This record gives sequence, C-alpha cells and structure tokens, in this order.
Amino acid sequence: MKTVDEVWELFRREISPREAVEVGLADALGGVLREEVAAPEDQPAFDRSAVDGFVVPADDDSESFRVVGEIRAGDADRHALAAGEARRISTGAAVPEGGEVVMLEDSVETDGFVRFSRRGRNHVRRRGEDAKAGDVLIKSGTNIGAGAIGLLASVGCVRPKVTRAIEMLHVATGNEIVAAEREPGVGQIRDSNSPLVSAWARARGLRTSQKRVGEDADALRKAIEGRRDLLLVSGGASVGGHDCTEEVLAAAGFKILVTKVAVRPGKPLIVARRGEEWAFGLPGNPLSHFVCLNVFVDAALAAMRGGANAPAIGQSTVLSDVAGNPRETWWPAHEELHGLRPLPWTSSGDLTALAAANSLIRVPVSGLAAGSTAEFIRTT
Amino acid sequence: MKTVDEVWELFRREISPREAVEVGLADALGGVLREEVAAPEDQPAFDRSAVDGFVVPADDDSESFRVVGEIRAGDADRHALAAGEARRISTGAAVPEGGEVVMLEDSVETDGFVRFSRRGRNHVRRRGEDAKAGDVLIKSGTNIGAGAIGLLASVGCVRPKVTRAIEMLHVATGNEIVAAEREPGVGQIRDSNSPLVSAWARARGLRTSQKRVGEDADALRKAIEGRRDLLLVSGGASVGGHDCTEEVLAAAGFKILVTKVAVRPGKPLIVARRGEEWAFGLPGNPLSHFVCLNVFVDAALAAMRGGANAPAIGQSTVLSDVAGNPRETWWPAHEELHGLRPLPWTSSGDLTALAAANSLIRVPVSGLAAGSTAEFIRTT
Repeated sequence: MKTVDEVWELFRREISPREAVEVGLADALGGVLREEVAAPEDQPAFDRSAVDGFVVPADDDSESFRVVGEIRAGDADRHALAAGEARRISTGAAVPEGGEVVMLEDSVETDGFVRFSRRGRNHVRRRGEDAKAGDVLIKSGTNIGAGAIGLLASVGCVRPKVTRAIEMLHVATGNEIVAAEREPGVGQIRDSNSPLVSAWARARGLRTSQKRVGEDADALRKAIEGRRDLLLVSGGASVGGHDCTEEVLAAAGFKILVTKVAVRPGKPLIVARRGEEWAFGLPGNPLSHFVCLNVFVDAALAAMRGGANAPAIGQSTVLSDVAGNPRETWWPAHEELHGLRPLPWTSSGDLTALAAANSLIRVPVSGLAAGSTAEFIRTT
Repeated sequence: MKTVDEVWELFRREISPREAVEVGLADALGGVLREEVAAPEDQPAFDRSAVDGFVVPADDDSESFRVVGEIRAGDADRHALAAGEARRISTGAAVPEGGEVVMLEDSVETDGFVRFSRRGRNHVRRRGEDAKAGDVLIKSGTNIGAGAIGLLASVGCVRPKVTRAIEMLHVATGNEIVAAEREPGVGQIRDSNSPLVSAWARARGLRTSQKRVGEDADALRKAIEGRRDLLLVSGGASVGGHDCTEEVLAAAGFKILVTKVAVRPGKPLIVARRGEEWAFGLPGNPLSHFVCLNVFVDAALAAMRGGANAPAIGQSTVLSDVAGNPRETWWPAHEELHGLRPLPWTSSGDLTALAAANSLIRVPVSGLAAGSTAEFIRTT
C-alpha cells in the first residue's frame, strides 16, 4: 500500500512532459508555456507619459509656458521642446527627450499659457523601467491565465509554444450502471462518473473519448485497444472488479505500479504504465472516484503537461472538527472567506457533498480540530 | 469617488439575473444552476452492498454457511435468503431483505461453505441513508463544477436550468495601439487588453465580440451601437479619454453611475447603465485594466448570472511587507502553499507581474506587514 506522497513522487520522477506545439494566443488559455519568453525591446519601448497633462523642458523653471501644441498617444512625430514652451500630452504618448510631464490636475491654462501649482513628481514612465530588452518575462512551465495572455500579446508573442492537448480515454465499467438519461431498473444506478470525468477533462482542455462497458474482461480488453496518454477505467476497482481491471491492463502490456493507496475514500486505486502511457483503475464509488481524480489523476496530468506540480496544495483554517481514521482522509469541503467548511458524507458512495464541494481537506490520521490549519486542494 | 465596497453593493442591489435556459449536462459546466434539484428517489434507492463479500441472514449465527449463489451489481433478481445459506455479493449489488454483508477479507471459503473471522460491521449502504426522496440536493444559485455535474447525473437531471450565456461587447480604444500581431511603430504599443479580455471572457463562458477603434468619439459611438448585457470600453478612461467614453455612453442613453473608484491601480473607472445593460469604461493601462476586470466586471457578471457573489474573497497570509497608499490597493500576487507572495510592479502600465499573478491582495491604506492576514481574490 503506497502513501499519497509516494504516488505523487512516482509521477514527478517517471512522467515526462508531452511535446510542445505552437498555438494561437486564444488557444493558449489554460495551457502550459514551454518556452522562455523575453522582452523583444525595452518595456516600455519609449518614454511615455503616465498622465494627461503638459510636457515642458525638465530644466526650465519658467513661471508660465506658452502652449504650442499637443502630443497624443500614438503620435509618431518627434516634437522638440524649446525653452518656455509647453505641449499638451496625453496618457501613453511619447515624451520628447529632455521633457518633464506635469499632471493636468496641477495646471492652470489661460490665454494660451499654462502655469503649474505643483511640479513635484515627473509623470513619465521611462523606457525600460519595467524590463530591459532580452529580460525573460515569462518562464517555461507557466500556467497560462488571462494575465499571461495579456503579457504575451504585449511583447508580440502571438504563437506561444505550449504542451499539446493530452489525449485520454475513459471507460466506465459495471453491470449496474445505465446512462444518466435512462430510468434505472431494479438494482441499477445512473452512471454519474462519466459526466463527471467529461466535465473535469473539459475544464482541463483534454481531448477525451468515453465508453461504457459491463464488468466483463473481454469487453474491457476490447474497449482499451489503441494508444493515448491517459487511460481511466472507472469502477472495477473493488476486490472483485479490481482483479479484472488489473488483469486486463497487465494482459495489454501495462506494468502495474500501484494497487492500493493509503487514502480514504479511494483505497483501491490502480496505477499502471506502458511506456509513456499511464492507466488508472479508479474505484467506482463516486466520492472515491472524485477524490482519486483530483488527488492522483490531476497530478499525473500536470506532469504530462510539464507545468507546476499538481495538485496545488494550499493551507487554510478548518472550521469544524474532522475525525481521523487509520487512513489519511481527503474530506470534501467548501472554501469560504474564513476557511474550509467540512461537508457531511456517509460513505464513499455518497455524492451529495459534491453539490457544494470546491475543495478537499487533507485530514491526517489523528484528525483535525476546528480552528487548526490544514492542507487542502481545490477541485473543479 | 466611490469605494470598492460601494460599487459591489451597487451591483448586488441593482443588477438582476438574466433568464434561465435548459442545457445539456456537458454545457452546464461553469454555469449557475437556477433551479432546486431534489432527489427523485431515496439515495441510495435500494440497500446496496458496500463491499465485495457474502450476504447471510442477519439473525443467523451459524458457524458456517453453504454458498448457494451470487448476487452481482446490476442483478435484477430478488434473492431470498434461507437460514444457513450465504450468497457471494459484489460491491453495489442489491442486498436481499434481512441480509447482512460480511467482507470478503473476513471470510474463508472451503468446499462450498464459508466461515467468517469477523462479523462486526454490516457493510450495507441503506436505502435513503444519503438522502430521502424529495430532499433538495443542490440549491439554486450553485456554481456548477464537475462534482455537481456528477450529482446531477446521479439523479437523472440531464437538462438542468442554468443562466443563459452573458453577451458582451468589448471595444479597445486608443490611437497608439496596434494588433499584437503587428510591429508597433514610433509611439505605438501592442494591444494587450483585447487578448486578455478575450481569454478572461472565454474562461467564464461569455459570448463575446471585440472591436478596436481610435480615440475618436464618432468611431466609438458607432462601435457600441446595438444591445448586449455587458459593454466594456478599454482605454479612454484617463482624464482626456475618460471624458470621451463618458460622453459617448451618456449620449447613447446610459446613465453614468460611477466615474472614479478609490482603488489603485484603476481609479478612473466608469460604470454606467441603460436598463438591464451595464457598461464599463476601463482604464487602458494594462495593470489597472486587469484589476478592474477582476474586481469590478467580475462582480457585475456574477450578479447577472445569479450565482454567489463575486469576486469570491478569501483570507491568507501575506509573505512580505506591502506598502500602503492613500487609496486601497489591489496588489498582484502569487498564491503559494504558505500564503500570498506580492509581485513587483512599477506602475499601472507595467504588466510584467501578470506572468505569475494568480491573485490580487486587498491592501488597506495602512499597508500590510509580512505575516499578517489579508483578504484576496483569485484571478483567472
């Protein structure tokens, strides 16, 4: 039986990032950057006015200046500044060499002349004050959010290199499951794991296909033919079905690396590998399934994408007592302003907590007292 | 000049949620649920075995039981249990009335008979133990994550009612901006705000169109013709351009509600309203723009979607000192295991911090000392 940390360490050590491809900026959102992006020119590239105001010669302490024109943002002309002269200047406009900018709010204009009530601060954003040409602005391995897309655009990097989409096959097994659209008969339940995996994968930009088969080794063997980065088999990881998934994976050339993890809910987890392909046998009980997906599959996925380690662990205050258990528990919770609110659940098959769960608290064997600090991860 | 809290309060009070529509489960991800969803039947709907094992009559304390058959998950037959008889049972299978389940691990089977080393706990998930038929499982207003999709599927709610997609027009203004694909000339810069808004909107499932115009009232007037839920005008909210955006919005029938907010960066923010349509004039400087988008536009959007208030404020430890300022500052930061790492920025035009920013710290006027607790929001 492996610990959670041991499984994470296995992924970090053994999973290599998939190839990088160039994509358009719009498609880079949520991706992992796989190149260093440097400033092609100084940032800003020229002295720019930080405000709307007037530009005057910096060493000119005249009491009043004749307003001789205007420099607008985007204006390509180089305006020389003579002694005793001022030009109106707008935010973002290029400041002429030797110029100093005074805010409009500190200026009084009368009859074509301007006087200043204050010339304290020079409101110019200097060429190169944010970064110099050649400085690395974004590191390889960055998870690309909207802010990073703005930054990439600002330096003209419109086709960044990111890890290609990860390809995944998900197979839900079990004789008792029927599609969620169907009315379950006696002894049957609706398949909730397939829609959950589909949504989870969509939120992460995976290229996913899904199948549903009975708990039958031959059907499973056929369903998993072919190759992809990730293979998930839901259900069939209980004692009986576990053997079936394990056997089918082994027969297909996968090396079985993990069959049990010291975690609750979710103990009967299979992790297997065939070259660069990784397979997971996930327990079919929906809460166990949810925990394994967010705690383990997400970590493998992050390693394949070459980004920061996942799951991204945070620390927060637990708002009520949580009982311990001989196994480390990942407890569904709702993250609120003041901390994490543990949600009730009756068994690994109880998914009512998933209505409000946006995180999982890592509960040590000894349990947690209200008000203590705990590690947690956010879930999708 | 309004405070941040006053602007949020304005949105909460004045913005009404848009209509709800039925969508397929796959399209519900990231949406806001607009109906209460109750359990159509008890959860679970029948007594289910929680393990692989044997089922025997609960009141039968025979030393050994004859194994007479098997009950598999999905099996629709009603198996009667006679005294002295056991049936193999798999996880998830229906437990016959009066049956008790013993784990496989606690069982020894020999020559068609089974004995138990332990019969302590009855491994049955009882009908209705998670929820009773008619119990509300998910509240209206829930943000639908992958977990909620699993729960909806489990109760057969495959066409949930969610708020329809919010429609947005974004207009970037400024004579100095050129498309990110183009090489900027003298005095020009690349338009980073449009790709940023596009990515931000995509992450939130908005239906967005975008335009780019010079800083010209007529062009802007034409660009904003038509109706939609949200109108964003980037740039043109400095003293000069601010007037232009404000005038054009007012001329188009918008009532101007806010022209300045006590926030840094981002002070020159316009908020305006025309019936159910809301317009924002966002400062063009990219860091101000990013802050206003995440602090204000997100809050308006949440109100339109009818979900929990946004931005969702958390609390965490600040890992280094942050200087105060006469205005409340929203400081770009990177959320790490032990807290929030403030990132350096030189001015509201400096977007280098956006490479790593995944959050904004709310810095009070008095500043923050390393190790103190601060409010923050997560950014996309």
